Amino acid sequence: MASAFEHQARTAASTIADTQRVRTGAEAVVAATVAAGVDVCFANAGTSEMALVGAIDEASTMRAVPVLFEGVASGAADGFARVSGRPACVMVHLGPGLANASANLHNARRAQSPVVVWVGEHARWLLPHDPPLASDIESIARATSRWVCTSGAVDELAVDAAQAVAASRGPVAGVSTVVLPMDLLSDTVDQVVPVRIAAGPVARAVDTEAIERAARALRAARAPLLLLGGPAVDGAGLRLAGGVAAAVGAKLMVEQFPRCLRSEPTLPRPERLGYLPFAAREQLAAHDLVVLLGADAPVCFFGYPGDKPRLTRAGATTMDLVGRHRDVHAVVAALAEAVDARSFVPTIERPQLAAPSTGALQPLSICRSLARALADDGIVVCEGITSSLPLYEALAAAKPHDLLTCKGGAIGFGTPAATGAAIAAPERKVVAYVGDGSALYTIQSLWTQAREGLDVTTIVLVNRSYAVLQMELLRSGGAVAGAGADLTEIGRPDIDFGAVARGFGVPATDVRDCAELDVALERAMSTPGPTLIAAHIG
Amino acid sequence: MASAFEHQARTAASTIADTQRVRTGAEAVVAATVAAGVDVCFANAGTSEMALVGAIDEASTMRAVPVLFEGVASGAADGFARVSGRPACVMVHLGPGLANASANLHNARRAQSPVVVWVGEHARWLLPHDPPLASDIESIARATSRWVCTSGAVDELAVDAAQAVAASRGPVAGVSTVVLPMDLLSDTVDQVVPVRIAAGPVARAVDTEAIERAARALRAARAPLLLLGGPAVDGAGLRLAGGVAAAVGAKLMVEQFPRCLRSEPTLPRPERLGYLPFAAREQLAAHDLVVLLGADAPVCFFGYPGDKPRLTRAGATTMDLVGRHRDVHAVVAALAEAVDARSFVPTIERPQLAAPSTGALQPLSICRSLARALADDGIVVCEGITSSLPLYEALAAAKPHDLLTCKGGAIGFGTPAATGAAIAAPERKVVAYVGDGSALYTIQSLWTQAREGLDVTTIVLVNRSYAVLQMELLRSGGAVAGAGADLTEIGRPDIDFGAVARGFGVPATDVRDCAELDVALERAMSTPGPTLIAAHIG
Repeated sequence: MASAFEHQARTAASTIADTQRVRTGAEAVVAATVAAGVDVCFANAGTSEMALVGAIDEASTMRAVPVLFEGVASGAADGFARVSGRPACVMVHLGPGLANASANLHNARRAQSPVVVWVGEHARWLLPHDPPLASDIESIARATSRWVCTSGAVDELAVDAAQAVAASRGPVAGVSTVVLPMDLLSDTVDQVVPVRIAAGPVARAVDTEAIERAARALRAARAPLLLLGGPAVDGAGLRLAGGVAAAVGAKLMVEQFPRCLRSEPTLPRPERLGYLPFAAREQLAAHDLVVLLGADAPVCFFGYPGDKPRLTRAGATTMDLVGRHRDVHAVVAALAEAVDARSFVPTIERPQLAAPSTGALQPLSICRSLARALADDGIVVCEGITSSLPLYEALAAAKPHDLLTCKGGAIGFGTPAATGAAIAAPERKVVAYVGDGSALYTIQSLWTQAREGLDVTTIVLVNRSYAVLQMELLRSGGAVAGAGADLTEIGRPDIDFGAVARGFGVPATDVRDCAELDVALERAMSTPGPTLIAAHIG
Repeated sequence: MASAFEHQARTAASTIADTQRVRTGAEAVVAATVAAGVDVCFANAGTSEMALVGAIDEASTMRAVPVLFEGVASGAADGFARVSGRPACVMVHLGPGLANASANLHNARRAQSPVVVWVGEHARWLLPHDPPLASDIESIARATSRWVCTSGAVDELAVDAAQAVAASRGPVAGVSTVVLPMDLLSDTVDQVVPVRIAAGPVARAVDTEAIERAARALRAARAPLLLLGGPAVDGAGLRLAGGVAAAVGAKLMVEQFPRCLRSEPTLPRPERLGYLPFAAREQLAAHDLVVLLGADAPVCFFGYPGDKPRLTRAGATTMDLVGRHRDVHAVVAALAEAVDARSFVPTIERPQLAAPSTGALQPLSICRSLARALADDGIVVCEGITSSLPLYEALAAAKPHDLLTCKGGAIGFGTPAATGAAIAAPERKVVAYVGDGSALYTIQSLWTQAREGLDVTTIVLVNRSYAVLQMELLRSGGAVAGAGADLTEIGRPDIDFGAVARGFGVPATDVRDCAELDVALERAMSTPGPTLIAAHIG
């Protein structure tokens, strides 16, 4: 794959030097990246990245967003990419910095989010002496990145940086990592290599024969299902897929953890595949044909004893029309044409908003409050785990919005992704709906929200436990006592999220019943800037 | 290396089954690990580790310590190992959990701390289907672990677990990682493999010829230096090395970031090698011979433009008597014998404690306050970066204590390591002396300290910046303005550490002048349990 990018990078028409003076390797990296269309960098820099920090400063065409912990940077880049459709940079310090970013890079990889990672590396002449912070950076990077490159010459830095952007874009978007030795970053650039990347590499063409086969199979199937995932869950994808479903009488379903699902009255609202295997199997039991449009073949999230991997029914046919090489929107459009789909006309009434509840907070009442309060064109980032089970249903009645969920399953996604979403769409309200356990992995996000004045409302679902693990312990016949309790409870002492938030500069409210939550949400929706609501589940 | 461990594991005499019933793979892992002498597990479990959680519960011979973030677990295991001399376990969930633990595993690796990492992996029958949380765990593990093993059969789990303990112990201690598939953990054990690991693999014998050569060279050198590092900086190592230094007229020096350095009046107090290259070169300039005793050859921490890697003077001879295969204490003892060293007699007066200061807080006054207040046999964990420069000198006057520093340079070490140190030595006062930037990487440690009632006093040096980076920016000719300022300041908003600490259940005090700090430290030293002092540098 690298060589295709390289060709584009090298043969591109313009030069950075035309528009701006590039003196050092670091300036070449920044200029090439900006030229390739990336202008936000979530950064937790160290000594080896000081030349990059200086170059961003000089260029002033790239926005630097500081974070207190690298996992915030990578999660923010994921959220940014999902909302803006564009990659952002993540700047981290050596192997340990990259490791700290990796859990959310894993999520970005699974969500097909384009993310460019800059890892500062030691000077090449120092590395053989194994200084204390040296480690095998590429080994860490390969776990999350499709494309990894360690730069080897100062005059190649611009090409490497541009290739990293191109590689992140696709054909299927993901994480690319460029490792930048400190000596190269501060070296003088002798020759500016011409770089402009107009677009990422072209996706493999739609396989028209496969489309025709799928169209025939959809018509022939008794109970066909279109399973949408990846980027297919945006407005354009949903509209096209809705047309296909109507034309062939297929059911429309969305994968378990959609990356950025658009919801508005004129779009289909697909059923969401369940997280728990028994629920998902029930949903899929009727379907003899499953056509994957951006989604992976549905398998269990975890392999419970005595279970089997697939969630589709025995004997069902699964067809993947997109795979890892094709543009999902082009595939869905071709399929719509093949089945002679008309444009989607909504036929199902959206549910009405639930009336306000009273009394103690439960996940359902919290989700319904949020659905009532959510601002028009809001963005909801969900990492609620057990508390989020009613969320998708409740949000069906909400104003138009986008829903981001933790596709990769690595905890610590919610508050960083909300941070990046708010950078991508400063004019929209962002709500992070997060479990208390989840929020605590990357709680440092709150400070970046305060620093940048981001319009993020964080609702923390306080149940003082890793409730999903208590459920798992019970499932597996274990007792939630002894060490089991110790490792699945996060009370004793209870965490005061209001205090933590205020400590990071974000105003906060504790709410303990439905009326209090409604008031707090209303205030949050009408007040710009970050805030946190600790919702105590009763 | 694996085969040597394996031999020991398999041929060991006793069986776990003698003393306790082992029904599942998870129980075999726990029983074998306890039998190998490891009985503390710092854990952030997920679904794939539920069988392990249940097994720890059942066994009740292993202490489970819950953490909110994996970097706390790995840093705590490092601190525990440095203070207790024994490995602890770190339980993490899949690749992302291991990634989150990796920065502090890097530090443990560099500090030669024995740490055993248990990574729960997906069921083997699910992995080929690439479920969302699947990733290349071994690729992440190899960046920090000398020994990595993915278990392949339930009846081998006990051996794998015991080997992991043995591998962590040495000859040179470090991190070992065993990847435990979920299906194996819950499978029934058919045959209990006999396991007892009495001790780690034997270190390679002392090379007596090399010792003799070193003894001759030390006697012949004009200005010899003994550079101590790794485990050689404990009481036994210092005493022996002090004898050698006196016998041959060598200077005694300790590496830049000692792992657990003992300080008491009857021990030598070696000069500490400086962090900044110019300072370190000045310290080493006089020495024509440098004998490494547990330390690495002194090189720059970072490779600044125009610099060179080594810190020793041109033409100096460096001899490494320990390397990666020998027991440093045996080597120092042999060297002491070879130079006919007498037991160490302290000749240099320890400095007196500085009198209390008044006025605004500066790093020097804070360090002196700490030296005055530190409880007898206290443990100081230092991650103060710029604010810690005066600490080592100031502590020379303090009561007997141990000093732990961040050998590997990966930030986020201080508060987790203090947590683990307090678990290892519940009867001793632990002080974490940490910069504000450093504290924020793994601030979740505070909750574990509250939960377990640990006797840790955290002093946060509040200067609202990554001061080391501002220094680096100025060194490299950059301006601390624009994006440079944005990425090196952590004010706007200022972080209220007191609020954050109280949020995690730890009482806290803000102090702004020397007298306030003295009062706060005195109270902290006389009150058991965790507390945080935010020391605002004026």
